[in-house]
Amino acid sequence: MGKSKKQIEQLLSSILETSSIEDEEVLLHLLGGIKDKQQGIHRRYINAALHMVGEFRKDSSEVRIPITPVIHNTIKVPHGGIIATIVDAAMGGLASRSVAPGFNVVTTNLNINYIATTYNEELIARGSFIHKGRRTLVMECVVEDETGKKLATATGSFFVIERRT
Amino acid sequence: MGKSKKQIEQLLSSILETSSIEDEEVLLHLLGGIKDKQQGIHRRYINAALHMVGEFRKDSSEVRIPITPVIHNTIKVPHGGIIATIVDAAMGGLASRSVAPGFNVVTTNLNINYIATTYNEELIARGSFIHKGRRTLVMECVVEDETGKKLATATGSFFVIERRT
Amino acid sequence: MGKSKKQIEQLLSSILETSSIEDEEVLLHLLGGIKDKQQGIHRRYINAALHMVGEFRKDSSEVRIPITPVIHNTIKVPHGGIIATIVDAAMGGLASRSVAPGFNVVTTNLNINYIATTYNEELIARGSFIHKGRRTLVMECVVEDETGKKLATATGSFFVIERRT
Amino acid sequence: MGKSKKQIEQLLSSILETSSIEDEEVLLHLLGGIKDKQQGIHRRYINAALHMVGEFRKDSSEVRIPITPVIHNTIKVPHGGIIATIVDAAMGGLASRSVAPGFNVVTTNLNINYIATTYNEELIARGSFIHKGRRTLVMECVVEDETGKKLATATGSFFVIERRT
Repeated sequence: MGKSKKQIEQLLSSILETSSIEDEEVLLHLLGGIKDKQQGIHRRYINAALHMVGEFRKDSSEVRIPITPVIHNTIKVPHGGIIATIVDAAMGGLASRSVAPGFNVVTTNLNINYIATTYNEELIARGSFIHKGRRTLVMECVVEDETGKKLATATGSFFVIERRT
Repeated sequence: MGKSKKQIEQLLSSILETSSIEDEEVLLHLLGGIKDKQQGIHRRYINAALHMVGEFRKDSSEVRIPITPVIHNTIKVPHGGIIATIVDAAMGGLASRSVAPGFNVVTTNLNINYIATTYNEELIARGSFIHKGRRTLVMECVVEDETGKKLATATGSFFVIERRT
Repeated sequence: MGKSKKQIEQLLSSILETSSIEDEEVLLHLLGGIKDKQQGIHRRYINAALHMVGEFRKDSSEVRIPITPVIHNTIKVPHGGIIATIVDAAMGGLASRSVAPGFNVVTTNLNINYIATTYNEELIARGSFIHKGRRTLVMECVVEDETGKKLATATGSFFVIERRT
Repeated sequence: MGKSKKQIEQLLSSILETSSIEDEEVLLHLLGGIKDKQQGIHRRYINAALHMVGEFRKDSSEVRIPITPVIHNTIKVPHGGIIATIVDAAMGGLASRSVAPGFNVVTTNLNINYIATTYNEELIARGSFIHKGRRTLVMECVVEDETGKKLATATGSFFVIERRT
């Protein structure tokens, strides 16, 4: 076994010596995400850590993140930055799939209005187009929980760029 | 050893069987963050996972996140949502410390202008006040990397609420 | 005749001595607006000067401004600030009508994405609610010209306040 | 005298028959602005109507509008749309002067946080650069009254385009 693997196992053992139930829930969640990434379910570690999954259709997207202690802020509701992360994923993922081969998009502006918070189980962000231009895209997004409670709305501007090869 | 601990160790072993060097870097990072949280360095798991640390003075804040594969998007630069997360942390953390005991703040609006990206090592967000009202706060934030390259600027509105007991 | 009326008439005469056709179009427009205000069609001088008229239903609004040289910027398309003015009128007018007697609203945040410009004849802004809270309202607005060309979209946050008596 | 001039004079006479003191103040203001435009003080009618004047330096701008009934909303404070107009003028005017000959800028995003209102005499907007890119500019602006009371802050994104000839 490599040195780094040994180090990882020792680190885990040391954590488990004093771990709380919540610590263990988080460890299962994070490691489960990494395992999923190895199996091709996620392309990015951040998505893996958040168990973020998305469906992208031609004109709309739906991205989901389970609400667990991993994304809680200090009052045990989803962190505002994670709301921003799911919003950027729902809009940016749709935007990048909409441009011609050889092109990609970069976010230029993100504006989020936070409406309510939730103690429920899942964040669901739905993205769609306001404007599909040749050089710029404007998109909108609504974030709800699984009961349909509206948590935030957002708009984003994206700039179309040539993909680096 | 508890059942859950056993399950966590088995999951890690299974990951390490096929882990890439990057997987191992990420595992060390995530587990190191959880360990730090156990030792009181972080209060939230999301901060622990990101190794996000902050300094909060009376009128300004500085929050840092190391740039690692954990926060990379598919083109290996920091994910726009993580920029939003550090921005929200730098402004919201300063805002919540500025209100009277018994009160807290909630983000109502977050607006981010993305300027450039970076292949360097650290995200640094500096928050400050534009307006400190009795019921609302308006704040601004600049995100740079450790070379001083400006990555994003943001403004946020916060609403002062009574703290739930 | 009062001194001030005399002064106004002399000022107009002096303008008409060297007026261009466009000057005269603008004068007819501005004076026509003031006349309309005297007849109760407008409540504010700014609406009168812009010939801005609105319809407000329970859950939506529609506000219109004719596109004339009065609102042109230097490249003869509607000034971005006037787009913001019609947006604020469509959202704020709807918001203020939605609160209980004795209350009013103030705009706290306005975010506008400009999409296209127009050489057509009319700006039409349609406002609606994203969220109607007890203390805050979040609204959205789309601005088009009379052909349905989308010019801008916007969101606004409004704070509910007690009306000054 | 041309037919249109005759019509304008008759319209003014009809207004002055029933004009209030406030009507006359507004008429003097609007006509004074048109006169100033004839004398080259303003390039646009909207600036003339608002008596909006600006100073543009290399890296900053200062634009002023007197607070008169022309820009009052129904509670006799400056209309939110006029705040947006002065913001767009301060940032856009500076942006357009900063690009190379043959180029111009268009506003793509405007985000305004409204902080306070004023019963004082003048709106003053100061614009500056956050980022000067080759294709995009990001700017910020603070609006105060003449006593230094902060009324609003804003950021804007501008896209550099080739000037139409």
